[in-house]
Amino acid sequence: MSDQDLIDLKKRRGIEPWRLRLAEWIESRRIQHFIVGVILFNALVLGLETDRGLMARHGHTLLFLDKLCLVIFCAEILSRFLVYRLAFWKSGWNLFDFAVVAIALVPGAGPWAVLRSLRVLRVMRLLTVVPALRRVVAAFLHSIPGLSGVMLLMAVFLYTSAVLATNLFGEKFPEWFGSMGGSLFSLFQILTLEGWADIARAVMEPYPWAPLFFVPFIIITTFTVLNLFIGIIVSAMQEMAIPPEPKKKARKK
Amino acid sequence: MSDQDLIDLKKRRGIEPWRLRLAEWIESRRIQHFIVGVILFNALVLGLETDRGLMARHGHTLLFLDKLCLVIFCAEILSRFLVYRLAFWKSGWNLFDFAVVAIALVPGAGPWAVLRSLRVLRVMRLLTVVPALRRVVAAFLHSIPGLSGVMLLMAVFLYTSAVLATNLFGEKFPEWFGSMGGSLFSLFQILTLEGWADIARAVMEPYPWAPLFFVPFIIITTFTVLNLFIGIIVSAMQEMAIPPEPKKKARKK
Amino acid sequence: MSDQDLIDLKKRRGIEPWRLRLAEWIESRRIQHFIVGVILFNALVLGLETDRGLMARHGHTLLFLDKLCLVIFCAEILSRFLVYRLAFWKSGWNLFDFAVVAIALVPGAGPWAVLRSLRVLRVMRLLTVVPALRRVVAAFLHSIPGLSGVMLLMAVFLYTSAVLATNLFGEKFPEWFGSMGGSLFSLFQILTLEGWADIARAVMEPYPWAPLFFVPFIIITTFTVLNLFIGIIVSAMQEMAIPPEPKKKARKK
Amino acid sequence: MSDQDLIDLKKRRGIEPWRLRLAEWIESRRIQHFIVGVILFNALVLGLETDRGLMARHGHTLLFLDKLCLVIFCAEILSRFLVYRLAFWKSGWNLFDFAVVAIALVPGAGPWAVLRSLRVLRVMRLLTVVPALRRVVAAFLHSIPGLSGVMLLMAVFLYTSAVLATNLFGEKFPEWFGSMGGSLFSLFQILTLEGWADIARAVMEPYPWAPLFFVPFIIITTFTVLNLFIGIIVSAMQEMAIPPEPKKKARKK
Repeated sequence: MSDQDLIDLKKRRGIEPWRLRLAEWIESRRIQHFIVGVILFNALVLGLETDRGLMARHGHTLLFLDKLCLVIFCAEILSRFLVYRLAFWKSGWNLFDFAVVAIALVPGAGPWAVLRSLRVLRVMRLLTVVPALRRVVAAFLHSIPGLSGVMLLMAVFLYTSAVLATNLFGEKFPEWFGSMGGSLFSLFQILTLEGWADIARAVMEPYPWAPLFFVPFIIITTFTVLNLFIGIIVSAMQEMAIPPEPKKKARKK
Repeated sequence: MSDQDLIDLKKRRGIEPWRLRLAEWIESRRIQHFIVGVILFNALVLGLETDRGLMARHGHTLLFLDKLCLVIFCAEILSRFLVYRLAFWKSGWNLFDFAVVAIALVPGAGPWAVLRSLRVLRVMRLLTVVPALRRVVAAFLHSIPGLSGVMLLMAVFLYTSAVLATNLFGEKFPEWFGSMGGSLFSLFQILTLEGWADIARAVMEPYPWAPLFFVPFIIITTFTVLNLFIGIIVSAMQEMAIPPEPKKKARKK
Repeated sequence: MSDQDLIDLKKRRGIEPWRLRLAEWIESRRIQHFIVGVILFNALVLGLETDRGLMARHGHTLLFLDKLCLVIFCAEILSRFLVYRLAFWKSGWNLFDFAVVAIALVPGAGPWAVLRSLRVLRVMRLLTVVPALRRVVAAFLHSIPGLSGVMLLMAVFLYTSAVLATNLFGEKFPEWFGSMGGSLFSLFQILTLEGWADIARAVMEPYPWAPLFFVPFIIITTFTVLNLFIGIIVSAMQEMAIPPEPKKKARKK
Repeated sequence: MSDQDLIDLKKRRGIEPWRLRLAEWIESRRIQHFIVGVILFNALVLGLETDRGLMARHGHTLLFLDKLCLVIFCAEILSRFLVYRLAFWKSGWNLFDFAVVAIALVPGAGPWAVLRSLRVLRVMRLLTVVPALRRVVAAFLHSIPGLSGVMLLMAVFLYTSAVLATNLFGEKFPEWFGSMGGSLFSLFQILTLEGWADIARAVMEPYPWAPLFFVPFIIITTFTVLNLFIGIIVSAMQEMAIPPEPKKKARKK
């Protein structure tokens, strides 16, 4: 998908001429714009398919158009695979493209049927095909490793709090803190500050000391999320701050 | 409205003397302050018009004062149009001024009646007339293009999630996820974290795996909004950081 | 209260010796620490007075201690006034101190009785007496002028939206949008994202186009608050960034 | 736990050889990784213990494994104590480790039984043992002193507001503002913006001027929290900005 892949391919020797020609064709502007168009059209079709009335009248047409888009995507990925062969699997973008297209081949009935709904993720191919969006996604993914420390800290804190909440409140409030899963969900809800006071006030009835659990939990998690945030800002600043350095050197020469 | 327009006008040759004199008069400090006064007065009148008791007693007076303000605005825009002619339409500020004044001419009955309520947008003329506010609005509009990547990403993600939510939950929760429009509204609500837990807990009843949809949705959208935010900060910093450069150069000469 | 005032006083000629001695005594460390102690003690007493049981048993003692603190504060402010005379009124800190002490002299009965509850604001004198807190408050007040543009913009936008909402929804939802005051309160609530979806969904019943009002309102106000925030950060950074400049100059000489 | 402690120990003379050898063994990579493994395993066991069904069938095994982990932790802390003796108590990390392990020795019955639930805090030892997490926690703790001014300000403001709210609304709304504790909790809830409108609208029934209390309270606390946040960012930036300085000097030599 990126021009870099094409350049790498051209550097290698002994590549069959038809592979190179196919590569140039598939990476050409025209074909890329066509693919973006097909994705947008498919997004529209998938949106229209959610309308029950429209499906009753034009269901056949919509499903046919959806399949047509799928065939085009399969053809694109297949030709890409023919060109790059095993190098195809090295790129995370290709893996994502392959996965969202492959999901459509899951049988429509049986235990995996619900997975089939995920075929709408195909619309997300826009994020891998449009260069501007691809850069934004890459910047997002790039910022994750620097945040792993704070995220791990958050995970340890959430897990400990969930065990504690299940032990303390699980018996009297099974709906919120009955199991580890339920506690983790409730604590995530409290972390987003959504309806935390209703839960805390209910728990305070039998346990008047409950604020000693909830208030520090909120303060610590909010402070941690805030530090996560600050971590992103500071690292974004740092990357912004590094380029000027070589300029200064150059000016002094 | 800005002095720049007046300067541009004066540079052009062959302009009738009355146009120049009218231009100087309309851009003069005295007239500009008078217009700001009229807008503030109109804002007060429009505010008083919302009071039912006051309208019953002094409705005629209020509506007359409102019309008086409108006449002044029309006269101002007309003279501005006489001065600048086609150049009038080049400025976004003028277009905004024209639109909010023109809305008052929509007939009070018929299918467009509801649009007439938008005549209160006239108060927003303050944002185009007061230079300090105009600068703030310009800074806002200026920061939008740099955010287009993240906003597009958000739009793709919201659209995909809405199709997915309509397919998955539409049948059992028509109120929230019955149509694309409803799903988009509900997902926007969840994105603002307002009442998301009530929706998620209701959906979890028939679909216990629902948190696998809602929790990643919240984390990804919050993270994206956060990056939007950081994008604004970083670009604001960058603009702040550029001016000192020429100063350094100047000092070395 | 600040040492600067004392230094200014000493510079002036022809000041009676007793005024200088009183000034030195009142600005001395020992007296300042004593006043901080009295404020803390008064805060405790005011806190205990909220306990009904305690008031029934020891009400007389608590009210006496409260009055004792008040007498000390009055004596302090009086001697400060004797020292600085008309210069006393120049400092905003002195005005605040005077106001929160004067409130206690409001009669306990009559139409102004509710104002008397404000006498607990006396605890806030900590913010003017403790230098560390005073600096924080000064920094806060210092950052306000730079934000006036964005705050004015917000005010214009809120006012216009309130007039619009009262006109559009006032008739059917008098509880939320019945008057300008009610609309402003409801829009402030929506701005904080608290329960906005409940209001929006209720309004959507008769007016299905209501999201066209609420969603842009939320996006614009959130974006504006965000810019307010960024404005504070950027100006904080700028102040942080200015000091290094003179250092560089110094190094080069 | 940190290598620094080991280095300090080696520098001191006259230390028995067995203490040095024990120190090297306990600070060795292998043992540290083993301890991390035991903490993770204990976290899993504590998580499984919250499942009632599992406890009924395998409760004995789980409690035995929990005790085994506890024994290992006790042995680790004991040997650490043997090595460092009184220096053990100087490190906050050691104190934390000691406290969370010691809690398990609280008797399971009697008035302190509820404290025993806190034994799950043992999982938090991950934060002191894994160096990456330890750094994050240290950075958090490091940023607190710089925020003390704003936090004190917040405390003074919250306390004053709580006394005021109890005096004003305590009689008619004992559930929310009946006592100092209740008022502080309600104001903390309002500060997080969670359900503040429900409280404010209820209080507005008898006291129509209530928004004059709630709206400024929200604006001031939000602004203060925001400044807390900005304080963290600015100080993070400052620390980021200081290191380059010495580099510049070095380059010039």
